[in-house]
Amino acid sequence: MTDISAGLDRLAIETPSWAYGNSGTRFKVFAQAGVPRDPFEKIADAAQVHAYTGAAPTVALHIPWDKVDDYAALAAYAKDQGVELGTINANVFQDDDYMLGSVTHPDPRVRRKATDHLLECVDVMDATGSRDLKLWFSDGTNYPGQDDIRARQDRLAEALAEVYARIGDDQRLQLEYKFFEPAFYTTDVPDWGTSLLHCLALGPKAVVCVDTGHHAPGTNIEFIVAQLLRVGRLGAFDFNSRFYADDDLMVGAADPFQLFRIMHEVIRGGGLDADSEVAFMLDQCHNIEPKVQGQMRSVMNVQEATAKALLIDTAALKAAQNSGDVLGANGVLMDAYNTDVRPLLAEWREAKGLAGDPIAAYKASGYLEKISAERVGGNQAGWGA
Amino acid sequence: MTDISAGLDRLAIETPSWAYGNSGTRFKVFAQAGVPRDPFEKIADAAQVHAYTGAAPTVALHIPWDKVDDYAALAAYAKDQGVELGTINANVFQDDDYMLGSVTHPDPRVRRKATDHLLECVDVMDATGSRDLKLWFSDGTNYPGQDDIRARQDRLAEALAEVYARIGDDQRLQLEYKFFEPAFYTTDVPDWGTSLLHCLALGPKAVVCVDTGHHAPGTNIEFIVAQLLRVGRLGAFDFNSRFYADDDLMVGAADPFQLFRIMHEVIRGGGLDADSEVAFMLDQCHNIEPKVQGQMRSVMNVQEATAKALLIDTAALKAAQNSGDVLGANGVLMDAYNTDVRPLLAEWREAKGLAGDPIAAYKASGYLEKISAERVGGNQAGWGA
Amino acid sequence: MTDISAGLDRLAIETPSWAYGNSGTRFKVFAQAGVPRDPFEKIADAAQVHAYTGAAPTVALHIPWDKVDDYAALAAYAKDQGVELGTINANVFQDDDYMLGSVTHPDPRVRRKATDHLLECVDVMDATGSRDLKLWFSDGTNYPGQDDIRARQDRLAEALAEVYARIGDDQRLQLEYKFFEPAFYTTDVPDWGTSLLHCLALGPKAVVCVDTGHHAPGTNIEFIVAQLLRVGRLGAFDFNSRFYADDDLMVGAADPFQLFRIMHEVIRGGGLDADSEVAFMLDQCHNIEPKVQGQMRSVMNVQEATAKALLIDTAALKAAQNSGDVLGANGVLMDAYNTDVRPLLAEWREAKGLAGDPIAAYKASGYLEKISAERVGGNQAGWGA
Amino acid sequence: MTDISAGLDRLAIETPSWAYGNSGTRFKVFAQAGVPRDPFEKIADAAQVHAYTGAAPTVALHIPWDKVDDYAALAAYAKDQGVELGTINANVFQDDDYMLGSVTHPDPRVRRKATDHLLECVDVMDATGSRDLKLWFSDGTNYPGQDDIRARQDRLAEALAEVYARIGDDQRLQLEYKFFEPAFYTTDVPDWGTSLLHCLALGPKAVVCVDTGHHAPGTNIEFIVAQLLRVGRLGAFDFNSRFYADDDLMVGAADPFQLFRIMHEVIRGGGLDADSEVAFMLDQCHNIEPKVQGQMRSVMNVQEATAKALLIDTAALKAAQNSGDVLGANGVLMDAYNTDVRPLLAEWREAKGLAGDPIAAYKASGYLEKISAERVGGNQAGWGA
Repeated sequence: MTDISAGLDRLAIETPSWAYGNSGTRFKVFAQAGVPRDPFEKIADAAQVHAYTGAAPTVALHIPWDKVDDYAALAAYAKDQGVELGTINANVFQDDDYMLGSVTHPDPRVRRKATDHLLECVDVMDATGSRDLKLWFSDGTNYPGQDDIRARQDRLAEALAEVYARIGDDQRLQLEYKFFEPAFYTTDVPDWGTSLLHCLALGPKAVVCVDTGHHAPGTNIEFIVAQLLRVGRLGAFDFNSRFYADDDLMVGAADPFQLFRIMHEVIRGGGLDADSEVAFMLDQCHNIEPKVQGQMRSVMNVQEATAKALLIDTAALKAAQNSGDVLGANGVLMDAYNTDVRPLLAEWREAKGLAGDPIAAYKASGYLEKISAERVGGNQAGWGA
Repeated sequence: MTDISAGLDRLAIETPSWAYGNSGTRFKVFAQAGVPRDPFEKIADAAQVHAYTGAAPTVALHIPWDKVDDYAALAAYAKDQGVELGTINANVFQDDDYMLGSVTHPDPRVRRKATDHLLECVDVMDATGSRDLKLWFSDGTNYPGQDDIRARQDRLAEALAEVYARIGDDQRLQLEYKFFEPAFYTTDVPDWGTSLLHCLALGPKAVVCVDTGHHAPGTNIEFIVAQLLRVGRLGAFDFNSRFYADDDLMVGAADPFQLFRIMHEVIRGGGLDADSEVAFMLDQCHNIEPKVQGQMRSVMNVQEATAKALLIDTAALKAAQNSGDVLGANGVLMDAYNTDVRPLLAEWREAKGLAGDPIAAYKASGYLEKISAERVGGNQAGWGA
Repeated sequence: MTDISAGLDRLAIETPSWAYGNSGTRFKVFAQAGVPRDPFEKIADAAQVHAYTGAAPTVALHIPWDKVDDYAALAAYAKDQGVELGTINANVFQDDDYMLGSVTHPDPRVRRKATDHLLECVDVMDATGSRDLKLWFSDGTNYPGQDDIRARQDRLAEALAEVYARIGDDQRLQLEYKFFEPAFYTTDVPDWGTSLLHCLALGPKAVVCVDTGHHAPGTNIEFIVAQLLRVGRLGAFDFNSRFYADDDLMVGAADPFQLFRIMHEVIRGGGLDADSEVAFMLDQCHNIEPKVQGQMRSVMNVQEATAKALLIDTAALKAAQNSGDVLGANGVLMDAYNTDVRPLLAEWREAKGLAGDPIAAYKASGYLEKISAERVGGNQAGWGA
Repeated sequence: MTDISAGLDRLAIETPSWAYGNSGTRFKVFAQAGVPRDPFEKIADAAQVHAYTGAAPTVALHIPWDKVDDYAALAAYAKDQGVELGTINANVFQDDDYMLGSVTHPDPRVRRKATDHLLECVDVMDATGSRDLKLWFSDGTNYPGQDDIRARQDRLAEALAEVYARIGDDQRLQLEYKFFEPAFYTTDVPDWGTSLLHCLALGPKAVVCVDTGHHAPGTNIEFIVAQLLRVGRLGAFDFNSRFYADDDLMVGAADPFQLFRIMHEVIRGGGLDADSEVAFMLDQCHNIEPKVQGQMRSVMNVQEATAKALLIDTAALKAAQNSGDVLGANGVLMDAYNTDVRPLLAEWREAKGLAGDPIAAYKASGYLEKISAERVGGNQAGWGA
């Protein structure tokens, strides 16, 4: 229990500011009551998640959605609420100029504009004190022949090099990959291999971000996790879950066993050690469920998967593996997975002065009713705001 | 050649009004110059596609996007432009009430509202003289347990029965299925089996609509086509193509060989016979390509695949099949596929007084420049307008 | 607990005789010590699974692999061992004549031969007193054009009709579907829709068999289960699990949450009611794990998933669903899933005089060592024997 | 035409000795008349493919399937037949010792045995004068927890390093990757990223082999080709095609447009230049079609795709790409693809003194009838022989 508790203590899960705004699909974005109208209100919501779970101490920002005049004021506000500002996310996919790409666009003018935005994000990092710049590019093509696959890689490399040169010694560049969407034929950073190749070319401060929903059907994500930890380039997770494509459901909702296996590899590879720099973040769309509660549920799902992974009897596992005892080794893993860790987590929370059941405590608090009443008028936050 | 020409004469491809408006992904809708601002302008654009290809004589409407006060006036306008109004598409996915479903919603009030909209669409059909009502439901759930899978089927059946009872003797109800999106756990009509079961329960005027992009990875669509023709329930196609999910690319763009195989099964099963009631429609999103030209290219892709399928030496094919000559039978099919049918299609067009190269003729016409200059101000059409 | 215990009492899981023989992939079949050499030894092994789990009272046979001169003797032997003979599985895929198909083959001679084998299987059923004939056809094609998709459906329908006419009033014909393999372009019964269409054409004694590994990537199997129960045609399960294609791993090994959701729909639709005729069978390949222990683990996995599904607070679930409480409804389901049911199952076993931990008891029994020592010489059973 | 002819002249496609033997699925291997019974007869068949196509000058060997006492004699025999010995393929998947892995096995004894076999294959290369050693490992696990994912990578790296140290200056080590099968949970070299990481660690003589059937559903293979050519590590292709998993159908049979796109990227990246070291090989299973004819058809399919790719108007393509003309750029590509290149290829063959229609000429030759009559008795070659 001590070890498990210590492991849980080290598990900090960053929530993204945009998860508190409205989101949806191309068919419809459904509005919800109480949704934030500015970055401050987003941070207030994020602080609730931390207040009840004790495991979500930082908030990721998205530029320009969370652009403010005074980042110091935003940081101070966050601190007052009990959280801190975290990763800065760049956005080079929502301007009409980016229809055919941003940093990989055939037109140098568009590439310049996109790269300048990335550099501006580093300025924001300097202002917020953020360690990480997370780059996701929607760049790609929809039709065979539309653009030159290889030339786009060269353009990407050039832009990344410029950004990499700009970040400070204590800052990192996270390069996220995604199988497809919004590009439907080629995507310029479609897999971990591509992301890693660029990171290796850049240098040690460039690391791969694994979004758990960004893979081809059937892909073994924990294998990728093990592989990236082995070469020292697993930078971060964007957690969410999916049944089909990039469904962006709450992490652990679609396949809790997979999440457990992923956390097992994280721990196995040192990703939860005291000196680990792996960042754990949520990135999902609460299209139909309440935002704050959805984030809380997600944080708890990661905690439960981690607690189960920490419960694995590693000595027994290794012994079974080395003796070729297929069912025995699998059984050791399943014993941990089949354990109900909710009591253990309630205990962990209570030891920290928190409620054992964060969801019940949050619902009892009346926060949702309060913000629903207060946040009337103005523009609700969403993608693009 | 005579047979091929006759086959092509029977191939009428309906284009959808919404394809002329802006479309996009959840990340961004990119605006294009010259995009229509009302149903009349959409019809004008659709008429261009028909004027140059000679194969797109009707336009599908989407209610409420194409709602007008006077459908007779809209029909007359279409006739003036050289086209006619076609299938009526219902929309029960863009109202906040439909967040958890429309006709399958747990709340009877929402179901009533949704069904009423479907009935209203039949009123529109009566006004436009349309034969077909096409129903696609975005209904489904995102999380296990969210709703009762089976109860939703019962609710769906109830709503469909009410609509079926309302349509006239010469009208049809097309029930479209879709693998997933925007629902990410269950979809209430996810596959052809479900659609067919409901059609069988309703009666002979209920038919299945096959959207070529709405299947699980690897699904053999031509098999489904053969199966539905065999039981007399293939009602219509929504054509588009995809590499990943429901990418909604131009039909024939991602896998032209698949489109050829589909058209081969259509012809094999009588779907292009003189008395066939199979409707051929486009339903795709031109996110990054010009709209009118994209529709023209799509119509031509269907024509090319059909011409190749009509070229198959069916006697030689049957002989090879019956003798178990695997490579011989495959070779007969490939001989047709490998033929360059573009000269043949140019000839067919020229025999009708059209330009042999529709794209070149359209580009030379200056139509895009004209509408780009004229259609300034107002709200561009798109999903939701 | 009483209800759960009663539900578990009704859960009888049939194990297949061939699971006790060697199996493998196209690359290699690895031989294991102690593998049976004839149907009697297979039954002896199957009896072990029942002896320790108390939940596997019948054994499925595969003809001709389990062909014997005297089925009454085989049945009597089974009874002595504490089990009974169950479903008869036909095999029309391992004769050189079936290279291009069996009942769908273009050559009537081959079709006749295949249908005769099916009829012979009904003779075996009469001799063994089996209720179910399970039909799986490997029939399909590898290359476009190789054979006529629709003609093959007609041939299939003809053969099925002949077999259906032959079975008795208390017998059933189960038609299994499979997405692909060993055919790689078309498969003649590839999905539940095709299987159901044939069953509907045959009559009420024809039912669909759902093999949990036989679907396209991403397919929602519990939806199919709900759908088939709704129309009264869910005949049976072939349980196994998969990460990729038809991997045939132990059921519950790849995605225990999916198995739980499936059992929830089974229960919701009455499939575990006292009068249910749904058959629960294992059909998997223990390529690298010990056979008997692998079957035991699988039976226990189904029991655990069922126990969790029986634990669902259905009143709370319905209330949350009806009020549109997405996270609440999902939470009710997850509460059951997250419960550790192993103590409950141990109790259930002990109440029946069995060991609480079947695997430990079996391993302690020395059975594997015994058969490994005894079963030397002769030909080990496997696919084709 | 001159350029196209020169490009085709450089396109040498290696055929694999095992393609001439019987193959099948885990369900059944169907025997065919005339199938070779030893390596010499395989080479005689391979020589036929070259004799008629003029494009298949070398034959890959598989050790131990093609083990002979005197490789010089085998090489001389090949030369007499008009072909040469090519790539050496290792086999560490068909010994009972390899049930849980070969070079990644937890037991050092098994790893030693496997590595020794790889070293033995280099001895064979020295004897045959082969440039390439192709390594494919079936290694992986079936169940979560079965073995340590990361430790297996370390063991793999160690074995590869030993082999790499053994190969000569003019020899190469090709590392093939495969998504899954025969392992069904993890595969130790599942993707191009893993293969490339190991190659980078080894040195410049280690290159990636791309098998076109070894990817997750939806994977964009031409992107991988472009990426590997960009970093100078595309070593070879194993050509085949698939609709589902690793179906191993004839290359170009399932998706001829994809093959064209792949060859376009090969040419774009210099892979068909005079100084290119990219090896083009077939690796497919002719389960139901005649072997020699199947190989011929495959060679021709690659030639047709290559000829179309060579026809692309690269200047027009680049101009359209750079101006952001999506449909124009796609149109340039499609113009080449839609061209019927069969006359051009017939001309190319006739200029070399070959028949314009290789299949017809081969069938007229009576070779299949001859070997069917002669090759009676003995054991037909297949996987494992």
